[in-house]
Amino acid sequence: MRALVKTSAGPGLTAMTCPDPAAGPTDVIVKVTATSLCGTDAHIYNWDPWAHSRIHPPRIIGHEMCGEVVEIGRDVTRVKIGDYVAAESHITCGQCFQCRTGQAHVCRNYRILGVDRDGSFAEYIALPDNVLWNTSSSIPPEFASVQEPLGNAVDAALAEDLTGHTVLITGCGPTGLFSAAVARTAGAATIIATDVSDYRLGLAKQVGADYILNAKTETPAQIAAAIREITAGEGVDASLEMSGHPSALHQAFGAVKNGGRVTLFGIPTGPISFDLANEIIFKGIRVHGITGRRLFSTWYRLAGLFKAGLNIKPIVTHTFPMSDYARGFELINSGQCGKVVLFP
Amino acid sequence: MRALVKTSAGPGLTAMTCPDPAAGPTDVIVKVTATSLCGTDAHIYNWDPWAHSRIHPPRIIGHEMCGEVVEIGRDVTRVKIGDYVAAESHITCGQCFQCRTGQAHVCRNYRILGVDRDGSFAEYIALPDNVLWNTSSSIPPEFASVQEPLGNAVDAALAEDLTGHTVLITGCGPTGLFSAAVARTAGAATIIATDVSDYRLGLAKQVGADYILNAKTETPAQIAAAIREITAGEGVDASLEMSGHPSALHQAFGAVKNGGRVTLFGIPTGPISFDLANEIIFKGIRVHGITGRRLFSTWYRLAGLFKAGLNIKPIVTHTFPMSDYARGFELINSGQCGKVVLFP
Amino acid sequence: MRALVKTSAGPGLTAMTCPDPAAGPTDVIVKVTATSLCGTDAHIYNWDPWAHSRIHPPRIIGHEMCGEVVEIGRDVTRVKIGDYVAAESHITCGQCFQCRTGQAHVCRNYRILGVDRDGSFAEYIALPDNVLWNTSSSIPPEFASVQEPLGNAVDAALAEDLTGHTVLITGCGPTGLFSAAVARTAGAATIIATDVSDYRLGLAKQVGADYILNAKTETPAQIAAAIREITAGEGVDASLEMSGHPSALHQAFGAVKNGGRVTLFGIPTGPISFDLANEIIFKGIRVHGITGRRLFSTWYRLAGLFKAGLNIKPIVTHTFPMSDYARGFELINSGQCGKVVLFP
Amino acid sequence: MRALVKTSAGPGLTAMTCPDPAAGPTDVIVKVTATSLCGTDAHIYNWDPWAHSRIHPPRIIGHEMCGEVVEIGRDVTRVKIGDYVAAESHITCGQCFQCRTGQAHVCRNYRILGVDRDGSFAEYIALPDNVLWNTSSSIPPEFASVQEPLGNAVDAALAEDLTGHTVLITGCGPTGLFSAAVARTAGAATIIATDVSDYRLGLAKQVGADYILNAKTETPAQIAAAIREITAGEGVDASLEMSGHPSALHQAFGAVKNGGRVTLFGIPTGPISFDLANEIIFKGIRVHGITGRRLFSTWYRLAGLFKAGLNIKPIVTHTFPMSDYARGFELINSGQCGKVVLFP
Repeated sequence: MRALVKTSAGPGLTAMTCPDPAAGPTDVIVKVTATSLCGTDAHIYNWDPWAHSRIHPPRIIGHEMCGEVVEIGRDVTRVKIGDYVAAESHITCGQCFQCRTGQAHVCRNYRILGVDRDGSFAEYIALPDNVLWNTSSSIPPEFASVQEPLGNAVDAALAEDLTGHTVLITGCGPTGLFSAAVARTAGAATIIATDVSDYRLGLAKQVGADYILNAKTETPAQIAAAIREITAGEGVDASLEMSGHPSALHQAFGAVKNGGRVTLFGIPTGPISFDLANEIIFKGIRVHGITGRRLFSTWYRLAGLFKAGLNIKPIVTHTFPMSDYARGFELINSGQCGKVVLFP
Repeated sequence: MRALVKTSAGPGLTAMTCPDPAAGPTDVIVKVTATSLCGTDAHIYNWDPWAHSRIHPPRIIGHEMCGEVVEIGRDVTRVKIGDYVAAESHITCGQCFQCRTGQAHVCRNYRILGVDRDGSFAEYIALPDNVLWNTSSSIPPEFASVQEPLGNAVDAALAEDLTGHTVLITGCGPTGLFSAAVARTAGAATIIATDVSDYRLGLAKQVGADYILNAKTETPAQIAAAIREITAGEGVDASLEMSGHPSALHQAFGAVKNGGRVTLFGIPTGPISFDLANEIIFKGIRVHGITGRRLFSTWYRLAGLFKAGLNIKPIVTHTFPMSDYARGFELINSGQCGKVVLFP
Repeated sequence: MRALVKTSAGPGLTAMTCPDPAAGPTDVIVKVTATSLCGTDAHIYNWDPWAHSRIHPPRIIGHEMCGEVVEIGRDVTRVKIGDYVAAESHITCGQCFQCRTGQAHVCRNYRILGVDRDGSFAEYIALPDNVLWNTSSSIPPEFASVQEPLGNAVDAALAEDLTGHTVLITGCGPTGLFSAAVARTAGAATIIATDVSDYRLGLAKQVGADYILNAKTETPAQIAAAIREITAGEGVDASLEMSGHPSALHQAFGAVKNGGRVTLFGIPTGPISFDLANEIIFKGIRVHGITGRRLFSTWYRLAGLFKAGLNIKPIVTHTFPMSDYARGFELINSGQCGKVVLFP
Repeated sequence: MRALVKTSAGPGLTAMTCPDPAAGPTDVIVKVTATSLCGTDAHIYNWDPWAHSRIHPPRIIGHEMCGEVVEIGRDVTRVKIGDYVAAESHITCGQCFQCRTGQAHVCRNYRILGVDRDGSFAEYIALPDNVLWNTSSSIPPEFASVQEPLGNAVDAALAEDLTGHTVLITGCGPTGLFSAAVARTAGAATIIATDVSDYRLGLAKQVGADYILNAKTETPAQIAAAIREITAGEGVDASLEMSGHPSALHQAFGAVKNGGRVTLFGIPTGPISFDLANEIIFKGIRVHGITGRRLFSTWYRLAGLFKAGLNIKPIVTHTFPMSDYARGFELINSGQCGKVVLFP
């Protein structure tokens, strides 16, 4: 089969022919219909220090995908040949405290598709049956594939109920944009989005942000003042920090009202200094660290959100044949895109 | 001033001239702009046994309202003359356990407007300043007046988060219809509504119900089968029982999935027999008894829901000058209406 | 091996020699150290209508147990030979909505040890590895065996936090007594227990009930008055209904304060009539139906409760060699016991 | 009356005669029976930069107290002459979003006794009736007075349920010690306490800490290793950060297990640098900023905790006549004390 392989410890990927994967007793072979690019894939493509420390070539990368079941192992009962499935990218151990108490999203021993084992930038992939998610045929492949990061956005946005509440989203990368779409569907009262890119703020507007603020052209003080004005001096009920940028982080804590809540999802590149007393303690707020997706309640909820009218169309900005992967990574590196999807 | 008065212990109301109300130090005089009819008002109008036991004539009735502040008592600081306000109808004691722990909606000593003291079917009303709710001028009076029962619907629907969840609403009286509109705005995945009136089911459809089922023309078994089919055999995540009818109550418990939740809001006319083992215990569900509105978190949330696009227009079916109150009560007794609003 | 077998459709059990169980690839053979009697076992022993409809002889019964791992299947990694284990009695499907969302305690397809497959009244039992619970060697077998029903009590008592709260427990069978012990360890402010047996109320006192009320010698009105006096007129924060008896159920709802919560655990023998308006709705309470144990968060919590000093010693009133099982069932039928444990 | 007054902008206090306070219509005069020293009082006594920026002499300081009602204003109904009361020290506005939604502990406009108005280091104090807390006569004055900081500890410890859970407490000042006592009463499985003072760790042991670790004699790595060993490699369910010290803060985040929770209560003296990715996000934890006490649910809960056997006796280490206040402040500055109580 054709696949995109990190063949050696350096930048780039190699499009090459690899052996078709084989299915063990509880495995399933999925013909990949669509597979989308994540920031993690770009780190691996660009071969930054994180990738260098974490990836052991050769490795087929990619972990966001959907496809059709074409072969099932002897003991598989959860899916059948012909099923239309997406995949949870975290393969959890099932044995640790977290796995045994309904918190497998923070499993202590999970392995990631396309990082710790071969991934989805390929015509076929072998997967354990228990990571598969049967997807409604009404969801087109380019949306089915992005359910994985969309699940992150669901958990980030809905760590606490948003219905009727005001929300600030700092950072309009794909997951930030997804969280804006989720907040809109969830009946948020007012959605304020910040980013440094007018292009991405434009996408935020398209998926339901009521107010957009450019952190490149406005100072932190100006943004804070704008949020105060929009919220009639109250601050927001919820801040979703989706960027990892220090300035956005302080904005998120500064904007939330006393007794409100902050989601932390964006990963900073280094340590960040906080004034805990004024940013957290005296405000009496709650902070939620969000990683992964709740298995599988978030996936069920996502199916419900699609039924409720969740609109992610503006966020999936580009689709290419898999062979054009380099254009996809260029777009990601430029920031001039939402989500990029490849068709193998 | 003109007012509608229950002058004696029997059916009907008398439109008559009464003295204008006077404001004590913490009171406010509101010129009533709109006042809406509640089932409670119909009980009093029809003079049923409940009304007989509860109401002591003479009494100006009515407790759903909005209006303009025209006079404030010496110690009032919360509102000012000219403010556009609605009113919480429960005047709570502020001293009991419930009031001191943020649960004033179940105050043990509350008094109700239009029941325990003179109400809003009048040109003017005197109210303690702490029950007033400043309302956005973008909300027209016929909507501002119905915020009180709409708050019931918010608490009934959102006792737990509905975003992405399936919901059954049994009973499409005004509060049931409001709860359907709230569920729609909150991003419910699928809304199923039942009632015995095609007229009301039609309104449910207008505010966002995906499926409507008529409990008069379909048997309980047929309705249960339809819900199973709609939910792919899973049952619903949440049942909102808004009718108080025995058959609907059992439908609500029967339809909810294991681990789901049921709201009880509709008031039965007598005792109802339950199979606790199969309807509640073995299902491992939660049941929420809902009464009143959370003071004032529900009112704030309601303001947020309006911003999020809450559509109650189809539910406010009739508006009349106050002098036509008899037509309003006839409509309520016939069931051929949603909410009826009077303009004094 | 020796085992207690329901050999035919009628009362009693037969102590007989059966083939030793064999282990499949994911199974474990446990040498049973202790196995305790549950009300369910008594139903089967007495052969009541429920047992008649549910049990298909021949069947080794029993589902509360602990023991030592003596053999493991090829694919077992969770436990090793020599481990001291108890067993979750519900063998869940792992595939349904409930299992996939952390709610396996209400799995739609679970099978029960000693009911749907051979149980623990035997020298050896074969069990899937994922129902085993490694138990601290500091817990003696007669306590380790009763962790299963103790888990019911944990979920019944701690459906919401009890620390600093007043609690009424109606029904002092073993699980009711366990819930009193849990409430004591959890820092309940005041524990009131009711039952019809002075013997069992005496046990309640031993595990920490502050007040005991005998529902045989006192009228419902007298009990209600006593609870009002104990709680200074407030009612209790939480009622745990552990009996299934109609009078106790109404007592539980009547005693809870506005905004409080009721656990339903005891199984009534038939339908029960409720005044929903006054017992649930106007009180604004929450009701929790409790069945099974949360897998495996309740088991972890139970291990923590033992460390915190949970005292169940007075509740395990009788221990016998397995051959004396008939004495155990006689005691259960008489009500003059707490928990009865057999040693195979 | 005699009172301790900050008469000018500098260190120390002056014991002097002041006019007796007078009661307005909703005020109450309380004869102070006991009044305890808080870290805040020490800041004011020592006249540090915070005190300099916040306190406007002359001011009678002190905000932890209990006493007897000796006079009530015209409109007071909540208490009567002779009542034994403690006082909530935050006088909240009743008008802001937080006050109107049951979150008055984070009122945006609160004023503090002994800071923004005259306090309790005096024979008499005038207080609004709605901050008074009727206290059981079974609680001696030296315990009744410290209910205010004890309430902080209740909210810090019980931000989420502790029953059956492992907990780390970093910092054994009085509020940290109170939180250990609360955790013990709440049925925590294992309590680990850290501090730099053997004296305070000894008090922690007395109120129920299972393990104590001295952060002066052991390195952060040694402490982390000890916690890992105590928790069998799992980490703790909950960390309560009660010190504000950077090293303790990182210890608290490092020790908590994936999916656990951290309370932040201790106030750092400056900004602190965090690795958000590894300390919060990838762990999927919740962080609770705690300030003040929930009005008045925490006070009710505290009354329940006393009934459940809460033992704070070892923490109230010193009592003096008010005239010996200087000895009290010396003790606080030395760290060789728990709580110091003065009797006016």
